[in-house]
Amino acid sequence: MSDFEVIKIDNASVVGCGVIGAAWASRMILNGVDVAVSDPSPNAEEILSHVLDNAIAAYDDLGLATDRRGSYRIASSIADAVDGSSFIQESVPERPDVKTAVLAEIEADASGDAIIASSTSGIRPSTMQTGMRNPGRLVVGHPYNPVYLLPVVEVVGGDQTTIENINRARGIYAGIGMKPVHVRVEIDAFVGDRLLEAVWREALWLVNDGVATTQEIDDIITHGFGLRWAQMGLFETYRVAGGAGGFRHFIEQFGPTLEWPWTKLMDTPDFTPELVDKLVDQSDAQSGAHSVSDLERTRDRNVVGFLKVLEANNWGAGTTIAEHRRVQP
Amino acid sequence: MSDFEVIKIDNASVVGCGVIGAAWASRMILNGVDVAVSDPSPNAEEILSHVLDNAIAAYDDLGLATDRRGSYRIASSIADAVDGSSFIQESVPERPDVKTAVLAEIEADASGDAIIASSTSGIRPSTMQTGMRNPGRLVVGHPYNPVYLLPVVEVVGGDQTTIENINRARGIYAGIGMKPVHVRVEIDAFVGDRLLEAVWREALWLVNDGVATTQEIDDIITHGFGLRWAQMGLFETYRVAGGAGGFRHFIEQFGPTLEWPWTKLMDTPDFTPELVDKLVDQSDAQSGAHSVSDLERTRDRNVVGFLKVLEANNWGAGTTIAEHRRVQP
Repeated sequence: MSDFEVIKIDNASVVGCGVIGAAWASRMILNGVDVAVSDPSPNAEEILSHVLDNAIAAYDDLGLATDRRGSYRIASSIADAVDGSSFIQESVPERPDVKTAVLAEIEADASGDAIIASSTSGIRPSTMQTGMRNPGRLVVGHPYNPVYLLPVVEVVGGDQTTIENINRARGIYAGIGMKPVHVRVEIDAFVGDRLLEAVWREALWLVNDGVATTQEIDDIITHGFGLRWAQMGLFETYRVAGGAGGFRHFIEQFGPTLEWPWTKLMDTPDFTPELVDKLVDQSDAQSGAHSVSDLERTRDRNVVGFLKVLEANNWGAGTTIAEHRRVQP
Repeated sequence: MSDFEVIKIDNASVVGCGVIGAAWASRMILNGVDVAVSDPSPNAEEILSHVLDNAIAAYDDLGLATDRRGSYRIASSIADAVDGSSFIQESVPERPDVKTAVLAEIEADASGDAIIASSTSGIRPSTMQTGMRNPGRLVVGHPYNPVYLLPVVEVVGGDQTTIENINRARGIYAGIGMKPVHVRVEIDAFVGDRLLEAVWREALWLVNDGVATTQEIDDIITHGFGLRWAQMGLFETYRVAGGAGGFRHFIEQFGPTLEWPWTKLMDTPDFTPELVDKLVDQSDAQSGAHSVSDLERTRDRNVVGFLKVLEANNWGAGTTIAEHRRVQP
């Protein structure tokens, strides 16, 4: 099907164990991979345990639970975590200086053929690999949370990354049930976050200007186009809107309206105390009745249900879940 | 629950019967409303019949089918269609001059207390009601396709629209199973299309610049954040990402990255023949194996499945479906 082969690994390292790192570790563990986890925070094991519980519940619900779980251990240092590992996923805070320092520490002790993947959602791999001794093995592997459930991972190489290592990373991600999408041109924020940031900026203006509340904006998404995007995305949805005339007809019909000046200035609104308070207050009014733990479980139950629907209809992310069943340990 | 009451109407008019008008008529018919349809095209009845078939299949699948369907008739003119009607939904092409002419024709024969609602996705109601004899009853009721399945409708009044008529329109939409969201401040493109246009513009740049194909962009949406947006939208998803610290913590953690210059220029790329060909070719490669009819049925089966999941979990659009069952004829 593609220019990479599925690779089953049996051990890996997770460096940085916040919500994203813990969800990576959970996906690996539930796919039979033994994971060594490193994080300076005393709360790391608690976060991992909490996220792993959610992941186990979701895999049970989805019918993906197996007896061949991997183990995990909390390593005493980055050096300890990466020792003997074939695949290292870095998920430390999104600051270039922190990333650079952690990558140097990883490289000092990683075995020569280990892939080093960064979860960064915006820093270019070419920037991160400057100064690395063996930059050819650094890739970005940018996931979407909950990482144990959402299949997609954007795989991006920098100027010095070899195509062999990009394809190895894709194979390893496919081996833990993911849909790797190779972003072939390196840009800030890659593809998904470019789309998300455009929406975020626009939504902030709408709240800032008092046009709509967070609740109203979310209602319009969840009761409207969100139900389309879980299955067909942007272009396929619009293809359907164009009818039998296909995409050309769609553009002929709707293209001109794009020239209307609908979106706000490129600037993001300043996060003044007033705007922050407005966002916080509206979000509390919208969702404050639920704890975050409850919201996480609800989110996972909903995603599990959507994935089952898509799998039954042999469509979209459902085809990736079917493949996940096939490659499971 | 709100400042409007659910209103059950037994007759309505649909002026303009393309894909959107036909889907409005289908939602009304399946909710026991007799509909008079007006459209100058000889294909109008064929389109309505096709969309109504899809809607019937979806309502059967969702368990919303009832014996009390409304009837429909193809009227000979706008005057014939609006005669004696209490609610008129206009869905003619998105050109201000066409809208103005059609609204004048509607008003000439509509009964004095009928609500006139426009499906426009971008023209301000204040602009459309200029020159109307009775502008106080014009509202925008902007739906999302497939209108018979997606619950949300943005209700927007112009400068001259009365709040009584806005609330009557909300009640009538709720009576046919919808979630009316009152957009209280009038802006071009309202709320949903402001968000959609921001994504569309960004996605066009990504294709134009060769960063990603339509297939890759849709894969990232459908296998990633699309699965979140069908249930929690933007702000509630980010609240969960902030963890127990709530929305304030989320902004503290991620706010600064917003200042990175991630999105492209405000301009939309020109629809050059080269860009149009690129979009058309990539869309054909992505979806050309399926006919639009097949895609419509798949889309509807998926949405039906999602709505059932959400209803079972008592969440999001599922709560609107539960309410829809309650108000059905």
